[in-house]
Amino acid sequence: MTKITFVTGNKNKLKEVVAILSQGGPSEESKVGNFEIVSESIDLDEVQGTIEEVTLHKAKSAAKLLNRAVLVEDTALGFRAMNNLPGPYIKWFLKSLGLDGLNKMLYKFDDKTAYATCTFGLCLSPDSEPILFQGITEGEIVSARGPTNFGWDPIFQPKGFDTTYAEMDGKTKNTISHRYKALEKLREYLLQN
Amino acid sequence: MTKITFVTGNKNKLKEVVAILSQGGPSEESKVGNFEIVSESIDLDEVQGTIEEVTLHKAKSAAKLLNRAVLVEDTALGFRAMNNLPGPYIKWFLKSLGLDGLNKMLYKFDDKTAYATCTFGLCLSPDSEPILFQGITEGEIVSARGPTNFGWDPIFQPKGFDTTYAEMDGKTKNTISHRYKALEKLREYLLQN
Repeated sequence: MTKITFVTGNKNKLKEVVAILSQGGPSEESKVGNFEIVSESIDLDEVQGTIEEVTLHKAKSAAKLLNRAVLVEDTALGFRAMNNLPGPYIKWFLKSLGLDGLNKMLYKFDDKTAYATCTFGLCLSPDSEPILFQGITEGEIVSARGPTNFGWDPIFQPKGFDTTYAEMDGKTKNTISHRYKALEKLREYLLQN
Repeated sequence: MTKITFVTGNKNKLKEVVAILSQGGPSEESKVGNFEIVSESIDLDEVQGTIEEVTLHKAKSAAKLLNRAVLVEDTALGFRAMNNLPGPYIKWFLKSLGLDGLNKMLYKFDDKTAYATCTFGLCLSPDSEPILFQGITEGEIVSARGPTNFGWDPIFQPKGFDTTYAEMDGKTKNTISHRYKALEKLREYLLQN
Protein backbone atom coordinates (compact mmCIF):
# COMPACT_ATOMS: atom_id res chain seq x y z
CA MET A 1 0.00 0.00 0.00
CA THR A 2 1.61 3.24 -1.17
CA LYS A 3 0.62 6.43 0.56
CA ILE A 4 -0.04 9.45 -1.64
CA THR A 5 -0.22 12.86 0.03
CA PHE A 6 -2.74 15.17 -1.64
CA VAL A 7 -1.38 18.64 -1.04
CA THR A 8 -4.18 21.15 -0.78
CA GLY A 9 -5.07 24.12 1.36
CA ASN A 10 -8.75 23.25 0.90
CA LYS A 11 -10.05 20.73 3.45
CA ASN A 12 -13.23 19.96 1.52
CA LYS A 13 -11.31 19.13 -1.61
CA LEU A 14 -9.80 15.99 -0.12
CA LYS A 15 -13.27 14.65 0.66
CA GLU A 16 -14.46 15.38 -2.86
CA VAL A 17 -11.40 13.86 -4.47
CA VAL A 18 -11.41 10.73 -2.32
CA ALA A 19 -15.16 10.28 -2.87
CA ILE A 20 -14.74 10.27 -6.64
CA LEU A 21 -11.53 8.22 -6.63
CA SER A 22 -12.81 5.46 -4.33
CA GLN A 23 -16.05 5.15 -6.31
CA GLY A 24 -17.96 2.13 -5.02
CA GLY A 25 -15.61 1.53 -2.09
CA PRO A 26 -15.92 2.86 1.44
CA SER A 27 -14.68 6.37 0.93
CA GLU A 28 -13.73 6.92 4.56
CA GLU A 29 -10.89 4.48 3.99
CA SER A 30 -9.37 6.78 1.34
CA LYS A 31 -8.06 3.78 -0.57
CA VAL A 32 -7.86 3.40 -4.33
CA GLY A 33 -6.32 0.16 -5.62
CA ASN A 34 -2.97 -0.19 -3.90
CA PHE A 35 -2.85 3.45 -2.89
CA GLU A 36 -4.01 5.32 0.16
CA ILE A 37 -4.75 9.01 -0.18
CA VAL A 38 -3.99 11.29 2.75
CA SER A 39 -3.83 15.04 2.73
CA GLU A 40 -1.64 17.83 3.97
CA SER A 41 -2.19 21.57 3.86
CA ILE A 42 0.89 23.36 2.59
CA ASP A 43 1.26 26.66 0.80
CA LEU A 44 3.12 25.97 -2.43
CA ASP A 45 4.44 28.57 -4.83
CA GLU A 46 2.58 28.60 -8.13
CA VAL A 47 4.65 29.65 -11.11
CA GLN A 48 3.51 31.63 -14.11
CA GLY A 49 3.24 29.63 -17.32
CA THR A 50 0.99 27.15 -19.08
CA ILE A 51 -1.48 25.02 -17.15
CA GLU A 52 0.87 22.06 -17.51
CA GLU A 53 3.94 24.01 -16.35
CA VAL A 54 2.09 25.26 -13.27
CA THR A 55 1.04 21.75 -12.24
CA LEU A 56 4.40 20.11 -13.01
CA HIS A 57 6.22 22.71 -10.94
CA LYS A 58 3.80 22.36 -8.04
CA ALA A 59 4.07 18.54 -8.07
CA LYS A 60 7.87 18.59 -8.13
CA SER A 61 8.11 21.19 -5.36
CA ALA A 62 5.70 19.26 -3.14
CA ALA A 63 7.51 15.93 -3.67
CA LYS A 64 10.86 17.55 -2.83
CA LEU A 65 9.46 19.36 0.19
CA LEU A 66 7.70 16.33 1.67
CA ASN A 67 10.11 13.73 0.30
CA ARG A 68 7.33 11.32 -0.60
CA ALA A 69 4.61 10.59 -3.19
CA VAL A 70 2.34 13.58 -3.70
CA LEU A 71 -0.72 14.63 -5.63
CA VAL A 72 -1.45 18.26 -6.52
CA GLU A 73 -4.22 19.91 -8.46
CA ASP A 74 -4.65 23.07 -10.49
CA THR A 75 -7.81 24.49 -12.02
CA ALA A 76 -7.92 26.89 -14.96
CA LEU A 77 -10.63 28.72 -16.84
CA GLY A 78 -9.61 30.00 -20.24
CA PHE A 79 -11.53 32.08 -22.77
CA ARG A 80 -11.00 31.06 -26.41
CA ALA A 81 -11.17 34.68 -27.56
CA MET A 82 -8.28 35.42 -25.22
CA ASN A 83 -6.18 32.49 -26.39
CA ASN A 84 -7.10 30.53 -23.27
CA LEU A 85 -6.36 33.27 -20.74
CA PRO A 86 -6.91 34.01 -17.84
CA GLY A 87 -6.34 30.22 -17.66
CA PRO A 88 -4.22 29.40 -14.59
CA TYR A 89 -4.58 33.02 -13.41
CA ILE A 90 -8.38 32.79 -13.19
CA LYS A 91 -8.39 32.86 -9.36
CA TRP A 92 -6.70 36.28 -9.35
CA PHE A 93 -9.14 37.61 -11.93
CA LEU A 94 -12.18 36.22 -10.13
CA LYS A 95 -10.96 37.71 -6.85
CA SER A 96 -10.25 41.12 -8.40
CA LEU A 97 -13.09 41.44 -10.90
CA GLY A 98 -15.89 39.27 -9.57
CA LEU A 99 -18.33 37.40 -11.80
CA ASP A 100 -19.67 40.56 -13.40
CA GLY A 101 -16.17 41.83 -14.15
CA LEU A 102 -15.23 38.59 -15.90
CA ASN A 103 -18.23 39.04 -18.17
CA LYS A 104 -17.30 42.68 -18.77
CA MET A 105 -13.76 41.67 -19.74
CA LEU A 106 -15.17 39.43 -22.47
CA TYR A 107 -17.91 41.83 -23.59
CA LYS A 108 -16.23 43.14 -26.74
CA PHE A 109 -15.20 39.65 -27.95
CA ASP A 110 -17.77 37.80 -30.06
CA ASP A 111 -16.57 34.35 -29.06
CA LYS A 112 -17.70 33.55 -25.51
CA THR A 113 -16.42 29.96 -25.57
CA ALA A 114 -14.49 28.88 -22.50
CA TYR A 115 -12.55 25.84 -21.35
CA ALA A 116 -12.62 24.61 -17.78
CA THR A 117 -9.49 22.57 -17.18
CA CYS A 118 -8.54 20.49 -14.17
CA THR A 119 -5.05 19.08 -13.97
CA PHE A 120 -3.82 16.62 -11.35
CA GLY A 121 -0.10 16.08 -11.00
CA LEU A 122 1.09 12.83 -9.42
CA CYS A 123 4.75 12.71 -8.40
CA LEU A 124 5.69 9.35 -6.95
CA SER A 125 9.08 10.39 -5.59
CA PRO A 126 11.24 13.53 -5.38
CA ASP A 127 13.33 12.26 -8.29
CA SER A 128 10.60 11.11 -10.65
CA GLU A 129 8.86 13.16 -13.33
CA PRO A 130 5.26 14.01 -12.41
CA ILE A 131 2.44 12.40 -14.40
CA LEU A 132 -0.42 14.68 -15.41
CA PHE A 133 -4.13 13.78 -15.59
CA GLN A 134 -6.20 16.41 -17.30
CA GLY A 135 -9.92 16.88 -17.74
CA ILE A 136 -11.39 19.59 -19.97
CA THR A 137 -15.02 20.70 -20.19
CA GLU A 138 -16.03 23.11 -22.94
CA GLY A 139 -18.69 25.71 -22.35
CA GLU A 140 -19.44 29.39 -22.60
CA ILE A 141 -19.29 32.40 -20.32
CA VAL A 142 -22.73 33.74 -19.41
CA SER A 143 -24.16 36.25 -16.93
CA ALA A 144 -24.09 34.78 -13.43
CA ARG A 145 -26.94 32.37 -12.65
CA GLY A 146 -27.32 30.10 -9.62
CA PRO A 147 -25.72 30.01 -6.16
CA THR A 148 -22.56 32.08 -5.90
CA ASN A 149 -20.74 30.09 -3.25
CA PHE A 150 -18.39 28.18 -5.55
CA GLY A 151 -15.94 30.24 -7.58
CA TRP A 152 -16.82 30.90 -11.21
CA ASP A 153 -19.48 28.15 -11.42
CA PRO A 154 -22.34 30.69 -11.92
CA ILE A 155 -20.87 32.06 -15.18
CA PHE A 156 -19.79 28.76 -16.80
CA GLN A 157 -22.44 26.99 -18.86
CA PRO A 158 -21.16 23.65 -20.20
CA LYS A 159 -21.72 22.90 -23.89
CA GLY A 160 -25.01 21.08 -24.52
CA PHE A 161 -26.62 22.37 -21.31
CA ASP A 162 -28.87 25.33 -20.61
CA THR A 163 -27.80 25.53 -16.97
CA THR A 164 -24.60 26.86 -15.46
CA TYR A 165 -22.34 24.69 -13.28
CA ALA A 166 -23.85 26.53 -10.30
CA GLU A 167 -27.43 25.71 -11.32
CA MET A 168 -26.73 21.99 -11.80
CA ASP A 169 -27.28 19.45 -9.07
CA GLY A 170 -24.07 17.90 -7.84
CA LYS A 171 -24.69 14.53 -9.46
CA THR A 172 -25.14 15.95 -12.95
CA LYS A 173 -22.16 18.24 -12.59
CA ASN A 174 -20.01 15.37 -11.38
CA THR A 175 -20.59 13.39 -14.57
CA ILE A 176 -19.42 16.15 -16.90
CA SER A 177 -17.13 18.38 -14.87
CA HIS A 178 -13.49 19.03 -15.72
CA ARG A 179 -12.51 17.80 -12.25
CA TYR A 180 -14.47 14.57 -12.64
CA LYS A 181 -12.88 13.87 -16.02
CA ALA A 182 -9.39 14.38 -14.63
CA LEU A 183 -10.09 12.21 -11.58
CA GLU A 184 -11.45 9.40 -13.78
CA LYS A 185 -8.09 9.28 -15.57
CA LEU A 186 -6.21 9.36 -12.28
CA ARG A 187 -8.45 6.62 -10.84
CA GLU A 188 -7.84 4.38 -13.83
CA TYR A 189 -4.09 4.87 -13.41
CA LEU A 190 -4.17 4.10 -9.68
CA LEU A 191 -6.22 0.94 -10.19
CA GLN A 192 -3.78 -0.36 -12.81
CA ASN A 193 -0.62 0.33 -10.85
CA MET B 1 34.08 47.05 -5.25
CA THR B 2 31.11 44.68 -4.94
CA LYS B 3 29.95 42.92 -8.07
CA ILE B 4 26.21 42.78 -8.67
CA THR B 5 24.91 40.34 -11.26
CA PHE B 6 21.89 41.64 -13.12
CA VAL B 7 19.96 38.54 -14.10
CA THR B 8 18.09 39.08 -17.34
CA GLY B 9 17.35 37.16 -20.50
CA ASN B 10 17.33 40.46 -22.39
CA LYS B 11 20.79 41.57 -23.57
CA ASN B 12 19.72 45.12 -24.35
CA LYS B 13 18.31 45.62 -20.90
CA LEU B 14 21.75 45.56 -19.25
CA LYS B 15 22.91 48.39 -21.51
CA GLU B 16 19.83 50.45 -20.70
CA VAL B 17 20.07 49.80 -16.97
CA VAL B 18 23.79 50.51 -16.76
CA ALA B 19 23.41 53.66 -18.85
CA ILE B 20 20.81 55.07 -16.47
CA LEU B 21 22.58 53.90 -13.32
CA SER B 22 26.00 55.25 -14.25
CA GLN B 23 24.55 58.62 -15.23
CA GLY B 24 27.36 61.04 -15.90
CA GLY B 25 30.05 58.40 -15.63
CA PRO B 26 31.58 56.31 -18.40
CA SER B 27 28.82 53.75 -18.90
CA GLU B 28 31.10 51.14 -20.48
CA GLU B 29 32.66 50.68 -17.07
CA SER B 30 29.35 49.52 -15.59
CA LYS B 31 30.26 51.04 -12.24
CA VAL B 32 27.94 52.82 -9.83
CA GLY B 33 29.49 54.02 -6.59
CA ASN B 34 31.25 51.04 -5.03
CA PHE B 35 29.37 48.55 -7.17
CA GLU B 36 30.07 47.00 -10.53
CA ILE B 37 27.10 45.70 -12.54
CA VAL B 38 27.61 42.63 -14.68
CA SER B 39 24.92 40.50 -16.26
CA GLU B 40 23.99 36.88 -16.69
CA SER B 41 21.20 35.36 -18.73
CA ILE B 42 19.32 32.77 -16.68
CA ASP B 43 15.75 31.56 -16.92
CA LEU B 44 14.17 32.05 -13.52
CA ASP B 45 10.76 30.81 -12.44
CA GLU B 46 8.30 33.62 -11.92
CA VAL B 47 5.64 32.96 -9.30
CA GLN B 48 2.04 34.07 -9.33
CA GLY B 49 1.19 36.78 -6.83
CA THR B 50 1.55 40.51 -6.29
CA ILE B 51 4.20 42.54 -8.11
CA GLU B 52 6.26 42.61 -4.93
CA GLU B 53 5.97 38.85 -4.33
CA VAL B 54 7.04 38.09 -7.89
CA THR B 55 10.17 40.26 -7.60
CA LEU B 56 11.09 39.08 -4.08
CA HIS B 57 10.85 35.46 -5.15
CA LYS B 58 12.91 36.06 -8.29
CA ALA B 59 15.62 37.91 -6.36
CA LYS B 60 15.88 35.20 -3.69
CA SER B 61 15.99 32.39 -6.26
CA ALA B 62 18.68 34.12 -8.28
CA ALA B 63 20.85 34.84 -5.23
CA LYS B 64 20.59 31.22 -4.10
CA LEU B 65 21.27 29.87 -7.58
CA LEU B 66 24.30 32.07 -8.25
CA ASN B 67 25.43 32.39 -4.62
CA ARG B 68 26.27 36.05 -4.99
CA ALA B 69 24.75 39.55 -5.07
CA VAL B 70 22.05 39.80 -7.74
CA LEU B 71 19.68 42.32 -9.26
CA VAL B 72 16.41 41.29 -10.92
CA GLU B 73 13.62 43.28 -12.52
CA ASP B 74 9.93 42.81 -13.13
CA THR B 75 7.57 44.99 -15.13
CA ALA B 76 3.81 45.13 -14.67
CA LEU B 77 0.95 46.95 -16.33
CA GLY B 78 -2.24 47.06 -14.31
CA PHE B 79 -5.65 48.49 -15.18
CA ARG B 80 -7.40 50.30 -12.33
CA ALA B 81 -10.81 49.01 -13.47
CA MET B 82 -9.44 45.48 -13.10
CA ASN B 83 -7.98 46.11 -9.65
CA ASN B 84 -4.49 46.39 -11.12
CA LEU B 85 -4.61 43.24 -13.24
CA PRO B 86 -3.19 41.93 -15.58
CA GLY B 87 -0.31 43.46 -13.57
CA PRO B 88 2.60 40.99 -13.42
CA TYR B 89 0.81 38.78 -15.98
CA ILE B 90 0.80 41.52 -18.65
CA LYS B 91 3.41 39.75 -20.80
CA TRP B 92 1.13 36.71 -21.19
CA PHE B 93 -1.83 38.90 -22.06
CA LEU B 94 0.14 40.99 -24.55
CA LYS B 95 1.46 37.83 -26.21
CA SER B 96 -1.99 36.20 -26.39
CA LEU B 97 -4.19 39.20 -27.14
CA GLY B 98 -1.98 41.74 -28.83
CA LEU B 99 -2.41 45.50 -28.44
CA ASP B 100 -5.89 45.49 -29.92
CA GLY B 101 -7.01 42.66 -27.65
CA LEU B 102 -5.83 44.52 -24.54
CA ASN B 103 -8.01 47.45 -25.58
CA LYS B 104 -10.94 45.11 -26.23
CA MET B 105 -10.58 43.57 -22.78
CA LEU B 106 -11.00 47.01 -21.23
CA TYR B 107 -13.75 48.19 -23.61
CA LYS B 108 -16.70 47.73 -21.28
CA PHE B 109 -14.99 49.39 -18.30
CA ASP B 110 -15.36 53.18 -18.10
CA ASP B 111 -12.11 53.72 -16.24
CA LYS B 112 -9.15 53.34 -18.64
CA THR B 113 -6.53 54.38 -16.08
CA ALA B 114 -3.46 52.18 -15.96
CA TYR B 115 -0.31 51.91 -13.85
CA ALA B 116 3.06 50.97 -15.33
CA THR B 117 5.21 49.57 -12.55
CA CYS B 118 8.85 48.62 -12.63
CA THR B 119 10.32 46.81 -9.65
CA PHE B 120 13.99 46.06 -9.14
CA GLY B 121 14.97 43.53 -6.51
CA LEU B 122 18.48 43.69 -5.08
CA CYS B 123 19.61 40.70 -3.06
CA LEU B 124 23.11 41.16 -1.67
CA SER B 125 23.62 37.57 -0.54
CA PRO B 126 21.73 34.25 -0.59
CA ASP B 127 20.77 34.76 3.05
CA SER B 128 19.71 38.38 2.98
CA GLU B 129 16.26 39.76 2.35
CA PRO B 130 15.95 41.46 -1.06
CA ILE B 131 15.46 45.23 -1.17
CA LEU B 132 12.87 46.52 -3.65
CA PHE B 133 13.06 49.72 -5.71
CA GLN B 134 9.80 50.57 -7.40
CA GLY B 135 8.82 53.17 -9.96
CA ILE B 136 5.20 53.78 -10.97
CA THR B 137 3.94 55.87 -13.87
CA GLU B 138 0.22 56.56 -14.13
CA GLY B 139 -1.45 56.80 -17.51
CA GLU B 140 -4.32 55.49 -19.56
CA ILE B 141 -4.87 52.75 -22.10
CA VAL B 142 -5.50 54.06 -25.60
CA SER B 143 -5.70 52.62 -29.11
CA ALA B 144 -2.22 51.75 -30.35
CA ARG B 145 -0.21 54.72 -31.67
CA GLY B 146 3.48 54.82 -32.60
CA PRO B 147 6.10 52.16 -33.35
CA THR B 148 5.09 48.67 -32.23
CA ASN B 149 8.53 47.24 -31.53
CA PHE B 150 8.49 47.64 -27.76
CA GLY B 151 5.83 45.72 -25.87
CA TRP B 152 2.75 47.64 -24.76
CA ASP B 153 4.35 51.09 -25.25
CA PRO B 154 1.91 52.01 -28.10
CA ILE B 155 -1.19 51.71 -25.89
CA PHE B 156 0.14 53.43 -22.75
CA GLN B 157 -0.28 57.21 -22.63
CA PRO B 158 1.28 58.69 -19.48
CA LYS B 159 -0.79 61.16 -17.48
CA GLY B 160 -0.25 64.76 -18.59
CA PHE B 161 0.94 63.78 -22.09
CA ASP B 162 -0.89 63.48 -25.38
CA THR B 163 1.59 60.96 -26.76
CA THR B 164 1.98 57.27 -25.96
CA TYR B 165 5.26 55.84 -24.62
CA ALA B 166 5.87 54.57 -28.16
CA GLU B 167 5.42 58.02 -29.71
CA MET B 168 7.81 59.74 -27.28
CA ASP B 169 11.46 60.26 -28.00
CA GLY B 170 13.72 58.23 -25.75
CA LYS B 171 14.93 61.22 -23.76
CA THR B 172 11.45 62.35 -22.77
CA LYS B 173 10.34 58.83 -21.93
CA ASN B 174 13.43 58.29 -19.80
CA THR B 175 12.57 61.21 -17.55
CA ILE B 176 9.10 59.97 -16.67
CA SER B 177 9.12 56.20 -17.23
CA HIS B 178 8.37 53.64 -14.53
CA ARG B 179 11.77 52.03 -15.20
CA TYR B 180 13.62 55.33 -14.88
CA LYS B 181 11.91 56.11 -11.59
CA ALA B 182 12.82 52.70 -10.16
CA LEU B 183 16.42 52.99 -11.36
CA GLU B 184 16.78 56.44 -9.80
CA LYS B 185 15.92 54.93 -6.43
CA LEU B 186 18.33 52.06 -6.98
CA ARG B 187 21.08 54.44 -8.10
CA GLU B 188 20.65 56.57 -5.00
CA TYR B 189 20.94 53.45 -2.84
CA LEU B 190 24.07 52.23 -4.61
CA LEU B 191 25.78 55.61 -4.32
CA GLN B 192 25.10 55.76 -0.59
CA ASN B 193 26.27 52.24 0.24
